[in-house]
Amino acid sequence: MRSENGQKTKSFKQRLVLKNSLAKEALSEFLGTFIMIVLGCGSVAQAVLSRGHFGGIVTLNVGFAMSVAMAIYVTGGVSGGHINPAVSFAMCLFGRMKWFKFPFYVGAQFLGAFVGAATLFGIYYDGFMSFAGGKLLIVGENATAHIFATYPAPYLSLTNAFADQVMSTMFLLILVFAIFDSKNLGVPRGLEPIVIGLLIIVLSGSLGLNSGCAMNPARDLSPRLFTALAGWGFEVFTVGNNFWWIPVVGPLVGAVIGGLVYVLLIEIHHPNPNPDFEVEQSEDKPEKYEFSVIM
Amino acid sequence: MRSENGQKTKSFKQRLVLKNSLAKEALSEFLGTFIMIVLGCGSVAQAVLSRGHFGGIVTLNVGFAMSVAMAIYVTGGVSGGHINPAVSFAMCLFGRMKWFKFPFYVGAQFLGAFVGAATLFGIYYDGFMSFAGGKLLIVGENATAHIFATYPAPYLSLTNAFADQVMSTMFLLILVFAIFDSKNLGVPRGLEPIVIGLLIIVLSGSLGLNSGCAMNPARDLSPRLFTALAGWGFEVFTVGNNFWWIPVVGPLVGAVIGGLVYVLLIEIHHPNPNPDFEVEQSEDKPEKYEFSVIM
Amino acid sequence: MRSENGQKTKSFKQRLVLKNSLAKEALSEFLGTFIMIVLGCGSVAQAVLSRGHFGGIVTLNVGFAMSVAMAIYVTGGVSGGHINPAVSFAMCLFGRMKWFKFPFYVGAQFLGAFVGAATLFGIYYDGFMSFAGGKLLIVGENATAHIFATYPAPYLSLTNAFADQVMSTMFLLILVFAIFDSKNLGVPRGLEPIVIGLLIIVLSGSLGLNSGCAMNPARDLSPRLFTALAGWGFEVFTVGNNFWWIPVVGPLVGAVIGGLVYVLLIEIHHPNPNPDFEVEQSEDKPEKYEFSVIM
Amino acid sequence: MRSENGQKTKSFKQRLVLKNSLAKEALSEFLGTFIMIVLGCGSVAQAVLSRGHFGGIVTLNVGFAMSVAMAIYVTGGVSGGHINPAVSFAMCLFGRMKWFKFPFYVGAQFLGAFVGAATLFGIYYDGFMSFAGGKLLIVGENATAHIFATYPAPYLSLTNAFADQVMSTMFLLILVFAIFDSKNLGVPRGLEPIVIGLLIIVLSGSLGLNSGCAMNPARDLSPRLFTALAGWGFEVFTVGNNFWWIPVVGPLVGAVIGGLVYVLLIEIHHPNPNPDFEVEQSEDKPEKYEFSVIM
Repeated sequence: MRSENGQKTKSFKQRLVLKNSLAKEALSEFLGTFIMIVLGCGSVAQAVLSRGHFGGIVTLNVGFAMSVAMAIYVTGGVSGGHINPAVSFAMCLFGRMKWFKFPFYVGAQFLGAFVGAATLFGIYYDGFMSFAGGKLLIVGENATAHIFATYPAPYLSLTNAFADQVMSTMFLLILVFAIFDSKNLGVPRGLEPIVIGLLIIVLSGSLGLNSGCAMNPARDLSPRLFTALAGWGFEVFTVGNNFWWIPVVGPLVGAVIGGLVYVLLIEIHHPNPNPDFEVEQSEDKPEKYEFSVIM
Repeated sequence: MRSENGQKTKSFKQRLVLKNSLAKEALSEFLGTFIMIVLGCGSVAQAVLSRGHFGGIVTLNVGFAMSVAMAIYVTGGVSGGHINPAVSFAMCLFGRMKWFKFPFYVGAQFLGAFVGAATLFGIYYDGFMSFAGGKLLIVGENATAHIFATYPAPYLSLTNAFADQVMSTMFLLILVFAIFDSKNLGVPRGLEPIVIGLLIIVLSGSLGLNSGCAMNPARDLSPRLFTALAGWGFEVFTVGNNFWWIPVVGPLVGAVIGGLVYVLLIEIHHPNPNPDFEVEQSEDKPEKYEFSVIM
Repeated sequence: MRSENGQKTKSFKQRLVLKNSLAKEALSEFLGTFIMIVLGCGSVAQAVLSRGHFGGIVTLNVGFAMSVAMAIYVTGGVSGGHINPAVSFAMCLFGRMKWFKFPFYVGAQFLGAFVGAATLFGIYYDGFMSFAGGKLLIVGENATAHIFATYPAPYLSLTNAFADQVMSTMFLLILVFAIFDSKNLGVPRGLEPIVIGLLIIVLSGSLGLNSGCAMNPARDLSPRLFTALAGWGFEVFTVGNNFWWIPVVGPLVGAVIGGLVYVLLIEIHHPNPNPDFEVEQSEDKPEKYEFSVIM
Repeated sequence: MRSENGQKTKSFKQRLVLKNSLAKEALSEFLGTFIMIVLGCGSVAQAVLSRGHFGGIVTLNVGFAMSVAMAIYVTGGVSGGHINPAVSFAMCLFGRMKWFKFPFYVGAQFLGAFVGAATLFGIYYDGFMSFAGGKLLIVGENATAHIFATYPAPYLSLTNAFADQVMSTMFLLILVFAIFDSKNLGVPRGLEPIVIGLLIIVLSGSLGLNSGCAMNPARDLSPRLFTALAGWGFEVFTVGNNFWWIPVVGPLVGAVIGGLVYVLLIEIHHPNPNPDFEVEQSEDKPEKYEFSVIM
């Protein structure tokens, strides 16, 4: 009887197991981005909804940064822990990931961020309902839309806003490339998420004043869309001189520049036992290369 | 003479040594939960009793989180460092611990938390006596009951409160499973307590506003019972619409869901050299399996 | 010529090298305690002298804790990084250090702390002179004596104060024993100072309200003596009902209890391949044992 | 066609690769100091430009410290991650780097810091323009010059200011020597940047009140020069009794003293299997020695 039962269980479990590597990677990116949004935007929610009594700039920056670290712990060994279309974009562009995976990664990231925003709204539903008499506002001292998406500071022009997103994502990618460059100082395996978390703390504490340092199209656009649908209204897209596209396009540009800066100024000059530079984009063993570089 | 003396000492020491593996594990869980409550609730006490002058949301969240980390350093190599009935419950349910150990673990955790609360009360006895003219209050600006147990925010309904405890414990368990999953990114041995500490910082900084993010029946119920007996009165159980059972039952449900989410979305899809999934619950070498997974 | 010169240099250097192991260990403890006091009490100084504008409870707790970590990085590989007579006392009592070293360690610690207090006073001399019109005060809002030594909260009785120092040092030693217990979870070599730093953050954030969580006779008594001599006057010894001896005696008692708790509840029950418990205090290879346990 | 194309790409890439070890090290120091200034001074900028609403002493100290850590991750494996002329000076003086490299390192550091200051000014251009009605001020509550360079506290004499920079850099170098001393406790490879970051947190939290704890001629002088040219005016050099040279000369003196203290009190006494102390400055394999010590 036991073996029979065991057989059944085995086959049921086996049906749940994804044979397709891409499918499990997409699932991983979905879960990672979901976790990042619930806990990251949740840190903003706690500060905003408590009007600063149970959160502030320190808990918020540390919270978002460490929610990224936690998301990478859940996804790092499966999908590389991108949880950011700009990172996936750079990885493809610099030969660390194959392009056909890109839409699946990005789709999973956008979906995970949307579901994460909805989940967070659910967890704090009573809080949102009591915060401003049930009103979901985008501007003013009772605004709550910036819990989910980033909005520009009053002084910020669109040009400066775009430069801001390009530059901050550039620094993000320079460091991501450095952290996973085994020919540089490197980070002990299993501690990369913590170092990336510390990096996000630095970035959001230094370049966060202009527009909140999104550096991630999925982190910003999906929750913004959720707020538009959930009751804040489609003004979330028009305020700030139609600011919404800045944290979508800026990070993609910045990620490319960041990767270029690191490769051209540091990586390309490493002493190379093998003088052939064509190892990137080679068709034979891309999976292995990808993991050895990213992970 | 020396050898004689040595013999005596040896036999005295040997009498103290617990031969029973379960007894030493229970002792370890008792000590760990005790440490967590004295230092964790102590962080809340310092903030409350100093009316914010020597503590606030940052010291409190970091303090509770790192008290968990310290408790795991004391217990991790002996009993797995659960210090939480919801964690023990999930470990049993997912085949990482044998069910017969469960009541001993949980009993030790509840007892350790109760003794911890009493010890903390003793350490700050003069402080409690001078804080509100010697009155031990549950509500109002001179309240001190929330030093020991969690209470819901004024806006919170019971439904939302239950969902809150389920969700936050779900995230706790997803990450605990990820941190100890050697086929994922993993954490270097000996640093798991630090990463779990950072996780608690994220969780209490993002999902702590509703009701303080207990996520642990022993951490909440035992100190609450202590306050009821020590002078705050049994209203600690009735306030907040009889809130007390939420952080007891919610975490158990959330732990199961969290374990399921991680196993179904991540763990089950890992490439498996051995296609037989029956390794869980196997009777032959459970002790070894348990430690290889949890530790 | 070069070899001749080299010979000279060599012999000069050789004259500086301490052949005596105890002498270099004492030198190491002196330097470590010196660093801890300058940077640790310096963190308090920055908060007090800026009246909270450039420091507060967070910078102060983190600063003191990480100054301990830094002191251990400088001394850990040479003298075990005690920088605390209570720790040295427990190490001797539990057979981790030979008693004849004890007075040298403690002397170096007291001397290092005194020189550290004097150095800090020098670094902030202009600040002290301008803070309260050049007056060096012990009580009141312009007090600066608590930059150097700990003072009890107004509500605190001597009994509670003594219990407070015993208990906080007990937790310190339980964790120090756990961190260096290779049969427990352990900490990766080279990261023990960071974990001890995090421990100090927890302790000073949770048990610091009563009297500042000194937990170290040298850290408290030497700077107090310095302030008595440097102009604050000998009232630093009499205020708080002659509080000064509490952070001297309390930690010694607490360290013993802490060691006992860890050994009796955890360490003694580890599965032991060698059933003979007399390895402690054995005369043959104490140096090796000492380092394998402490380091 | 592919191989032809590959050939072309290869030769283009090869033309970009720096054969000269010194050139790539200088490039690395340039990039590292650039990153440190943008993110480090950026942390100050966020606190100042938001008038404390999105940054304060905690985010600022942590931000600058971790920007140093990030800069070392980018440069550590290539140029040793000095990003500070005082560190390079000590490394040369104590035989860890050859003197002929010194001007190139320092030049790259000063250049990187200047470009970093200019880049930060660009990123926050709209913020600077709106902060004080477009005025770039050096003193008063609307001052922004201290975002880039350090200025002395009102109470500080030049003598005390000089002692302050000497002492703080002394502690910096004592710890840098300890962290990379493989015969002491040491730090796991790849985590040195984090420990140095924690060190900077301690130093700027304890010895930062006098004049901001620059401890680095390039970090202070280059951004100061930038502000002089960018519109703050050359009073940035004259205010504070011509304070500008203190954080340039003081750190060089302090670095030498710090190195001496560590070598004389700790390093020289390590048990040495090879009694010949001339290994420093040996001409045969300096590169290897340099890396084994610094990295």
